[in-house]
Parts: sequence; structure tokens; C-alpha cells
Amino acid sequence: MAEVVIATRAKDYAQWYQDVIAAAELAEAAGVVRGCMVVRPHGWAIWEKIQAELDRRFKETGHQNAAFPMLIPLSFLQKEAQHATGFAMECAVVTHAGLRAVDGKIELKSELEEPYVVRPTSETIIGHFFAKWIDSYRDLPLLLNQWCSVMRWELRTRLFLRTAEFWWQEGHTAHASHEDALEEVLRMLEVYRDVYENVLAIPVIKGIKTANERFAGALETYCVEALMQDGKSLQGATSHDLGQNFGRAFNVTFQNKEGVRDFVWQTSWGCTTRTIGALIMVHSDDNGLVLPPKVAPIHVAIVPIYRKDEEKERVLEVAHRIARELREDGLVVKVDDREGMKPGAKYYEWERKGVPLRVEVGPRDIEANTVVAKLRACDDQKKTIPMASLGVEVGKLLDFLQKALYDRALAFRTANTVHVDSWSDFVDVFKDERNSKFVYAHWDGTTETELAIKEATKATIRCIPLPDQGLTVEPGKCVKTGNPSAQRVLFAKNY
Amino acid sequence: MAEVVIATRAKDYAQWYQDVIAAAELAEAAGVVRGCMVVRPHGWAIWEKIQAELDRRFKETGHQNAAFPMLIPLSFLQKEAQHATGFAMECAVVTHAGLRAVDGKIELKSELEEPYVVRPTSETIIGHFFAKWIDSYRDLPLLLNQWCSVMRWELRTRLFLRTAEFWWQEGHTAHASHEDALEEVLRMLEVYRDVYENVLAIPVIKGIKTANERFAGALETYCVEALMQDGKSLQGATSHDLGQNFGRAFNVTFQNKEGVRDFVWQTSWGCTTRTIGALIMVHSDDNGLVLPPKVAPIHVAIVPIYRKDEEKERVLEVAHRIARELREDGLVVKVDDREGMKPGAKYYEWERKGVPLRVEVGPRDIEANTVVAKLRACDDQKKTIPMASLGVEVGKLLDFLQKALYDRALAFRTANTVHVDSWSDFVDVFKDERNSKFVYAHWDGTTETELAIKEATKATIRCIPLPDQGLTVEPGKCVKTGNPSAQRVLFAKNY
Repeated sequence: MAEVVIATRAKDYAQWYQDVIAAAELAEAAGVVRGCMVVRPHGWAIWEKIQAELDRRFKETGHQNAAFPMLIPLSFLQKEAQHATGFAMECAVVTHAGLRAVDGKIELKSELEEPYVVRPTSETIIGHFFAKWIDSYRDLPLLLNQWCSVMRWELRTRLFLRTAEFWWQEGHTAHASHEDALEEVLRMLEVYRDVYENVLAIPVIKGIKTANERFAGALETYCVEALMQDGKSLQGATSHDLGQNFGRAFNVTFQNKEGVRDFVWQTSWGCTTRTIGALIMVHSDDNGLVLPPKVAPIHVAIVPIYRKDEEKERVLEVAHRIARELREDGLVVKVDDREGMKPGAKYYEWERKGVPLRVEVGPRDIEANTVVAKLRACDDQKKTIPMASLGVEVGKLLDFLQKALYDRALAFRTANTVHVDSWSDFVDVFKDERNSKFVYAHWDGTTETELAIKEATKATIRCIPLPDQGLTVEPGKCVKTGNPSAQRVLFAKNY
Repeated sequence: MAEVVIATRAKDYAQWYQDVIAAAELAEAAGVVRGCMVVRPHGWAIWEKIQAELDRRFKETGHQNAAFPMLIPLSFLQKEAQHATGFAMECAVVTHAGLRAVDGKIELKSELEEPYVVRPTSETIIGHFFAKWIDSYRDLPLLLNQWCSVMRWELRTRLFLRTAEFWWQEGHTAHASHEDALEEVLRMLEVYRDVYENVLAIPVIKGIKTANERFAGALETYCVEALMQDGKSLQGATSHDLGQNFGRAFNVTFQNKEGVRDFVWQTSWGCTTRTIGALIMVHSDDNGLVLPPKVAPIHVAIVPIYRKDEEKERVLEVAHRIARELREDGLVVKVDDREGMKPGAKYYEWERKGVPLRVEVGPRDIEANTVVAKLRACDDQKKTIPMASLGVEVGKLLDFLQKALYDRALAFRTANTVHVDSWSDFVDVFKDERNSKFVYAHWDGTTETELAIKEATKATIRCIPLPDQGLTVEPGKCVKTGNPSAQRVLFAKNY
């Protein structure tokens, strides 16, 4: 394949984002299937790492995985629309089943009596089964999760961030009381925070969405929001308090301890492959992808260096021995023994693919019983490491990088977060088309003002931060209208 | 939920199969989505175990996972039909995108210019991308796999065995020569045999499908076939030698070492959730599900036994201590401390769910420093095990069960495999509507005879066994026509 030249962030951030994905071979637009993408092996391997981290935490908190049909009867959306406050409109619709060949041309065979939509999310179909499975408070809580892809017909797509089909997990739970449901909503929000901060090395703000940004049918939508390098915000995951809305729509009732029938209290929560978009936009640089070691499909790339044939054998032997040692520590190690390719070209490729640590081994290293190691980011210095302590030192370097990436992202966020109290300052912060910041400002609590601010600046309310998110909760005056405000909220342009 | 009474195999095998699934809460028919199923947590946990075993082997043999769109342009099937010998006809077709509410009723919005089908399998769409990614012999072999669900509109469905939507993995590879491709086909067939025999404890016969049973577009389809308890055969997995058919249809070419452009040689291979159907039909009994320990989501159920409150605390303490010890050995252990339920009812439930080992702990056991253990199958005797050697003994019992289940299935197959040389004997073997056997008989190699035999007996050729499958390869005369035959082939009724 042709080599991809990566645009600089300063020159063209949107192009840089695309180039990083192409250069690391993470994904590509499907083209022939409108709005869809192909996730290539290196991209999917990152998703598998994220899946494993989330899945372990879901199971530790008592959830079980299951699988529900990918098609949903159209009438289910009708039910949802009547009881909840809306539903996903941009669905792919299956109207026919079966094909036939007529004069060598393929035609559709039978029209279905009732169309199906390809699931945009599964609250409705899962609600239908909850109604069959739940009868008594003894059946509660019911704690399920599903890994799958879903489809929403998107006009403007962007790899990982917004595509018609995307991959995700969707948790769906039912509880005997609103209190229990709310506890669940916050428990899963904390799981997302934990994975974002401690695995993806991305600091997040936990908060509540405004009514305008809330999931249709939810009482409240909780979220984690992360700051990208262009100052825009990315919604990292959501956790919904569905109240009894879906219970009412799908008649999910239970007999409580007092013998009275009531609708269950439900939650749903999800995290998608856009997480990979966040990884790219938070950590990567003009040389390509940067990955925290905990989600890197390959931890260490070993590049053997030799000139003569008599050096080659010895160097390769040592390279493979080192690889074996490191693999015993649970690391994924690639020995890049490709022929006819210069070490520099190999360095360049592993750099673009975001491999956290490169190890170089040549004849002089072997003589000195050392290797040369270089981290992908956060530290430019090459290090000479004694072979005897290689495992320990590599472990330390990877731990260092994991922490350094988080610290760097947090420092960037701190530097790009401001409190704004006047409308002229507010407009000023967001005036550059291509940039944004995290802005904490007062808001009068109305959708009208929220939309007026968006209209004027393109900034939206990303969330109302929870009380424990480091922001002093104090009343003030709305930055736009001057009307009373209960607390500052988080504004930013967003993905 | 209402308790499920399990029919006996002798009385009604088909009902027994359904009852085992219901009693173990593995899956249920979706009902509202025609032909689809819901895989419930206990069923999905088994699938996750099978996935992990397969996935590890795929990766060890150099394959990488990726994800392709679930929708396929209709024109791709047209291309396939022209170059390969057929394609899947029973597809769900997406013709519209977007919904709108008109007077509170939901209607379809825009008709698509070109319809899409929900993937029945992905050779076509993956072929399209192979053409973009492959340019030179250096890009080969390209070894990909995808985990997903696919959809084929089925009229007569049966949980796990035949549903419109099912879950599977589909491997897709491209090679520089037919020799390399064929090696891959056999390598993956061997992976399937290994997982069937050494993980699922199900002996299989490796063979080649006849032209009539071959995958549309393949040069040859290889398979593993397993014998169920009613004597019918179940196709466990397939591995296809696609030749250059899809390469031609999607113009997947490469420049070979001699600088000449040629079409790539492709393979595809798959294993589905019907594997769970095989597990049920090979191992389970009239008391419910039986699972080999290697795919059991729960290995050990500990049932505490006490009468008085003063016993309860002590017994539960020991039960949880034992559980912790066993978990340290990597086992999944459930302490069934539910209140208001008699031990017998608990035994019954874990039995129906196929938990391999039950451990009972009561006051007298604690006094004697022992526990009582009972295997789910293959050995009816309760065993008294000293607590001091619990970990070792439990490990031995689970190993015993894993092996005993395989041995039992193999013995059953041996007892139900016959060589048949006359047509009257052949008809006789298959005359009972509800039973079958593995029958090795000679066949003249024509589709005509194959179909005549099927018409007369409902038995089909499950495969032409490979030379290493224990069957002496010798010529003979066709059991139906008397015409010359190169070797015996495997006949059976099938799922």
C-alpha cells in the first residue's frame, strides 16, 4: 500500500486525525456501504483490549452477557414513542426477505407483513423479554449486558466518531426501586471513569446531561466527558436512569415484597468504538498513533540491527531470546526480522502504529550485554538497559508511559479549562472555528438559553458536573441572560 | 418462572431437546422477530467459553480479528452469482433508511437507491476489501477472522440448530498458491477437530462434502461431523477451499514472485452457535444439561446443608472458604446460599444447568473435616473428600468427567456405526423415522444416486471421510446402483 503522509495537528487537525488512522491501519470507510466502516486488525485488537477491561468489570459487578435479535419490529418503536419521549428515527429498515434470480438478475422476493429495523439500541426488544422473565422482586435486580454492533443512518460520518454501524456494549438492568436503579447508574458511570482514566489514560469529567441532550426516554442521562487536543469535548460513555418509562411501554411489572404489582425501574449504559477515536485525539502526535500500554496490542517491537551476514544470526538469536523473556512477563512482543528493510523504516512504522516501546539490538549491544530502548512518547531519550534487568526495566518504562500519558492529558486539560463570567469573554473563547476549551460558566437552566448559546458560539453544555468533580458548587448569574444559576456547567464544542 | 418438566429422550427426543434448553435457561425463541432467538446468560456464557478456545487457536495460527459491515450491497451478490456457482437466497433485505412520525404513526422515510442485504456470510464484502489491500505476494497470506451474527431467513427453526440469526466466526484468508490455501483449509479443519474433541468432548469425523452439499462457490468443502444421541449427524464446522472463484468475482489479484499478476487463492471457515446444540445432544440426559468442565460457565456448585440457625453460620463460613480455595485454582464456584430453598431443590437446579460437580457441606462433614462431592454424569457415586486435599481431588474429578464424557460419546458412536453393503440392509437401518446411525457404505459418486438415496431413506452423505479417519479406503460397489465406488462414504440423517 502507498505510504500515508500524516498532516500536522497545527495545520489541519481533521486531516491529521484521518491520517493517523490510515497510517496505523486502524480502520477505513466502507465506501460501498454508506456510512459504514471496516475496522482493520490493528484497530480491532485495540477494541478487544478495551472490551476485556470493561467486560471484567461488568462481571465483577454482577452482570451477565446475553444476545438479543439484531432486528426489532417497527411496532416496538411505536410503543416506545407513546410511552417514552421519543426514539431513534435514523434506522435501517428491513422490508423484504428472500431473493430470487430472474433472467440472471437478482430481485427481491417477499415483502414482510411488518417491517423490522436494524437495532439502533435495544431497550425496546430487551424490555419485551424483561416482561417475560420478571415476575417478582426475587427476580430483581436483573443485570444484563450485550456486545454487538448497532446501526443509525448517519449523513456526516467520521471514522470511529460517527458511522452508521458502530460496535458497542449496551447494559440493560431492571430494579425494584428507583434508589437501586440510580445506584446502578452511578456504579456503571464509575466503571467507565475507571476504564477511561486508569486504562485509556484519559481524564474525564462525570456529569449529568441537560434535558436537551438527554437520551430519549430517560429521566436522566449521566456521562463522562473528555477533552481532545483541539479543545473539543468527546462524550466517552453514558449511563441512563430510565425510570419506569420502558417498564410502562413494555409492561414490565413485578410483585414487590408487600405483594403489590409495580413497574420495574430500569437503567441502560453504553460505551462504543468511538473510544478509539478518543484515544487517538487525546494521545497521538504528528508522528502517528500513541497508545497507553494497557490497550496496546503490541507492547514492544524489537528491531535487530546488523550489517554483515555473520552478525545477523547472532543478533536475531538474541532478539528472539529477549522476546521470549518479555513474553513470559505477559507482554506482546514483535521481533521485526523483515528482510530488505532498513531499521529506520521499521522504527517509523512501529511509531506510526503506536507501539509503546521500541528495543534495538545490535552487535555492540550484545558485546556490552545491553539493549537500547525508546519510548513512543513522553520521553525522547534513548536508554541503555542491561540485559540482566531487561524485564524489570521494560516493566518500569511501560508503567512510566501509562502514567505519563495520563499526566500529560490532565495537564493539557488543566491548561485548557477556564472559568468565564461575561458573555463577551465567552464568545471570545469559542470564536476560533477550529478550537475550543472546557469552559465552566453559569447557565440559567433553560433549554432556550442553551440553544441560544449554541447558535451564537457552537458551544454546547457537555454536562452539569457531579458535586465530586473538583468544581465548587455555588450559585451565580447566567453568562448569557444574567438570570440566576444554581452552579457552573461545562461548555465546549463537541464531537 | 414456571418449572420446566423435561421429557425423556426415549419418549420424545425433539421435545427433550427443547426442554433441556428451557430448563437450563440457555435460549428461547424470540417470537416477535421471526425465526430469531435470544441467547440467555447461561447459554451465552457457554458460547464465550467456546469462543475463547477457538480464538486462542486462531491467533496461535497467525490470524487476526477484524470487523466488516453487516450490510452488503445487493450488487455484490450479483457479482458472486456470475463468478461463483450460487449464493445465499434467503436474505433479509434493507430497502429504506429513516423513519418519520405522521399523525403519531411511524412510517418509513426514504427508499434506498440500492438495497442491502443483512450479511448471510461475508465472502463478498471481504473480497471487495481484499482487492484494496492485496497488491503483491508480500501481502500474502492475509489471514483474517470475524466474530459476528449473520442472518438467513429460515422457515423451520430450532434453537441453536437452525435460526434466522445465529452467531459465528468466519475466517477469510488469501494465499499465493492453491497449495498454501489447501494447507490453510486443513489447518483450520484440524483446529475444529481439536476443539470438538479436546474441549467439547465430542468425537468427530473429518471429511469432504459431496458436490451436492458443497458451499456455493467453493472448490471443496471440508467438514467435521458428529453423531448425536438419536443417531443423526450434526455438521460441526466447515472449512472451504474457495479456489480463485471469489478472486475472480471481486478482482483480487497479486503480483507473484515472477512479476506476473494472478488471482489470489482464498479460503473461508466457520463454526457457529449450533455447537451448543451439539453439546446438548451429545452429552445431556433426562435430568437436563450435561457440560464438559472445559466449557462449563460454573464448575462447582457448593450447597450448604444445615437445619438450625447455629449450624448455618458455621456451614456458610466453611462453604465460602472452600469456594475461595477452589477459585484460586481458576475454577468458577457458586455457593448456593439461597434462603427458603431445600438442598434437594438446589441439587435439581444445578443438575439441570449442567454444573459438572456438586459439593455438599453440612455440620457432620465439617466435624469429619470432609465434604461430599458428586459428579453430574458418568459416575453416580457420592464421594467423601478430605478438606485437606479438596483442590487436588476436585481437579481430578473434573478431569475424569472431561475424559469420561468423551469416552462415553466415542463408545456410543462406535456402537452406532455400521458398515452396510446391501440396499435392503441400508433401508432397514434408516427405516425408523426418529432414529439414525452412522453408516459407511459404497456410493457410485453421482449426485443422482445421492439424491435417490435421500429420497428413499432421508439419509444423506455427510462426508467422504479423509484417509486418516480410521476407515480403510478400498473400492467396492455402490449400495444403491451396484456401480463402482472408490471408497465408502458416511451416510446418516442429519440436523
